[in-house]
Amino acid sequence: MTGKIVNTNFSYITQKLEDVGLAVQWETTVGDDRENLLLAFTLAGQRADAVIVNGGLGPTVDDLSQEIAAKAAGVELALNEGWLGTMEEFFRKRSRVMPPNNKKQAMLPTTAEVIDNPIGTACGFALDIGRARFFFTPGVPRELRRMLEEQIIPRLLAKSGLQAAIHLKRFHSYGLGESHVDQLLTGVEELAADGSVKLGFRAHYPQLETKLTVRGKDMDDIRRKLAPVETEVRKRMGNFIMAEDEQTLESVILAELTKRQGSLAIVETFTGGLITSRLAPIPGAEKLVRRGIVSRDLGEIYAGVGLDGRPPAGELTRETAEAVAQAARRRTGATHALAVLIDLDDGPDRIDFGGTICLAIATADGTESRKSRILGGREWVRLGASEMGLDCLRRQLQGLPVYERIDFEKT
Amino acid sequence: MTGKIVNTNFSYITQKLEDVGLAVQWETTVGDDRENLLLAFTLAGQRADAVIVNGGLGPTVDDLSQEIAAKAAGVELALNEGWLGTMEEFFRKRSRVMPPNNKKQAMLPTTAEVIDNPIGTACGFALDIGRARFFFTPGVPRELRRMLEEQIIPRLLAKSGLQAAIHLKRFHSYGLGESHVDQLLTGVEELAADGSVKLGFRAHYPQLETKLTVRGKDMDDIRRKLAPVETEVRKRMGNFIMAEDEQTLESVILAELTKRQGSLAIVETFTGGLITSRLAPIPGAEKLVRRGIVSRDLGEIYAGVGLDGRPPAGELTRETAEAVAQAARRRTGATHALAVLIDLDDGPDRIDFGGTICLAIATADGTESRKSRILGGREWVRLGASEMGLDCLRRQLQGLPVYERIDFEKT
Repeated sequence: MTGKIVNTNFSYITQKLEDVGLAVQWETTVGDDRENLLLAFTLAGQRADAVIVNGGLGPTVDDLSQEIAAKAAGVELALNEGWLGTMEEFFRKRSRVMPPNNKKQAMLPTTAEVIDNPIGTACGFALDIGRARFFFTPGVPRELRRMLEEQIIPRLLAKSGLQAAIHLKRFHSYGLGESHVDQLLTGVEELAADGSVKLGFRAHYPQLETKLTVRGKDMDDIRRKLAPVETEVRKRMGNFIMAEDEQTLESVILAELTKRQGSLAIVETFTGGLITSRLAPIPGAEKLVRRGIVSRDLGEIYAGVGLDGRPPAGELTRETAEAVAQAARRRTGATHALAVLIDLDDGPDRIDFGGTICLAIATADGTESRKSRILGGREWVRLGASEMGLDCLRRQLQGLPVYERIDFEKT
Repeated sequence: MTGKIVNTNFSYITQKLEDVGLAVQWETTVGDDRENLLLAFTLAGQRADAVIVNGGLGPTVDDLSQEIAAKAAGVELALNEGWLGTMEEFFRKRSRVMPPNNKKQAMLPTTAEVIDNPIGTACGFALDIGRARFFFTPGVPRELRRMLEEQIIPRLLAKSGLQAAIHLKRFHSYGLGESHVDQLLTGVEELAADGSVKLGFRAHYPQLETKLTVRGKDMDDIRRKLAPVETEVRKRMGNFIMAEDEQTLESVILAELTKRQGSLAIVETFTGGLITSRLAPIPGAEKLVRRGIVSRDLGEIYAGVGLDGRPPAGELTRETAEAVAQAARRRTGATHALAVLIDLDDGPDRIDFGGTICLAIATADGTESRKSRILGGREWVRLGASEMGLDCLRRQLQGLPVYERIDFEKT
């Protein structure tokens, strides 16, 4: 309530519920205050079928959720011996003694159904207040997530009468805007005859996530319904799909390099190390990312990759990027070298501020390159150029054309 | 309401209000739905003195704030000719014609007081609903921020009877935890006799922001009250203060380098380019950050900075970091070189996963170095090591001891 913490739990919850076809109607935040909490629970119990309460289950005197839940439901609090035992075991496993004030976390309303928290001491629980079923969850994000996915969503789906099996298929792309993809995919939902597939998007520049939510009797039923839609989405979005489901652009690149026992050198200018820092810290990358060389000055880049002479004067060219990528490959002995060079516009940072990007990828088989222009302010250019560089590398590794026109570039 | 967007506006608003001594009691989020909006306005009008509404002022049919505000206040909507003119001028200046549906943004409740939006077409306004004064603000973050700071906060302060002049003094530090600094600063508030200075914190690892909110008759009064407290905070926090107010660690480093016409080379391992990417893209850094060299492999680092032979086997040492920093300085011709080398623990990422950091700073006057150990998981180590590297560089540039024990390191 002090603004110290941004409420990412709420957007997480709504997103997860949307993914299974449930809509959130109303959200309330109040501080750790008895009167406001009681009013909030009472109001929510009047208007909703189900309510998720997040936080207030900790051991301190500020944590009031159980107390006010009992009051709102008109029941007493009582010590739950089962949960007390679970907590004692939790501390014993970590060779610690349970502090006395943790006992408070096992005080639950008498009508509460316990919802297990396998990774923390805050006890989840459900009970009825007014006409709604309330689900109380811990504020710690990873504890909330696990409880929501494993225990609360199945209960909500059962309560809603929606079919129990739900599957979310995700495609990650770069280069096409949300409305463009929406238009490209017109009608794909109808390939699953009974309306059991729903299309949705989540845009987080520079990437777009395309989501298919599939509902069915069981996973076989879901796979059958999803198959024609999934195939059609892959066909229509084509080379723009960088990764699916849990994959990331970064993990796809590292897997391709691993497959061919390859290694990578990266040369950056205005991206300033961002491209390298997206790959290098990942487990396993220590064997794949051989070297990153960063400078805003092209002369310094020449020195860094061991190119003689001065860079050509005038406009940045693909040929310069190619020469830099080839030299970086020679200098480091990497099988692949990516060079992303950027000429920033002059002047102040504004929405029409842009940059010219010349990027090249050098391998044993030759060098591919691309020139592009991105407008939208310094940060927009920096993020876009880093994505474009990595996506072109992904394309090269997958044997796809490095150049395909994207929605974010101006020519 | 779909979770696609995290509500950072709310944490921004509460933070800003806290800064001037106002507390937020209750927050509600509802979708673009007439019934829910009307209920939310009515309930808020019953319990609050003032209500800030964010969003719903756009030109589309989904944007319902004016309509429902009028309904909740029991008044009509009418075209505000003044705002219509402002909007037409807004488009004219940008050589565009105003689309007809923007006219909707000038339809205001008849009792509304217009609140100017100098940077957008959404018209802010205030009116009474129930016992509360409502302030309607645009959802676009930069428009909201400007309207909140310049127009709404002064109105709220006037309404609350708090003194009109408020000033926020901020100190940015690294290395001391919030409770440690809280303890260090015990009693500083009392140095301003009349309770007009309030101490607060905002922790965003690895940095801590220490805030002094000062209230007074005018800025002279504020400066007089703040002076003894400010001096005492600087004395007690000492070298741990990296930056004040609008400054950042990065801007302080770049300013120090500029002052002495210096230049910088950076060598990174597990931080993977993060340190370089925090400095290099900043305007002006193109002249200061000469080169970044990144590799997870120490042998590759040796090759990158032109050191002969293989790195010594065994545990990472300060001497190795010193040799790397000195070589990077020689190789690039930079006046300053920072090397941050990290030996990561083996095994899976857990809360007790750590890394050993050896960092060195080489200059014409010699080389300083530091060895440290950070535990807390891969990402925690990566962020902590990047902060430690930059902060040690700041200390060196400011002539302060590079090593002072911090709360985040284990020895």
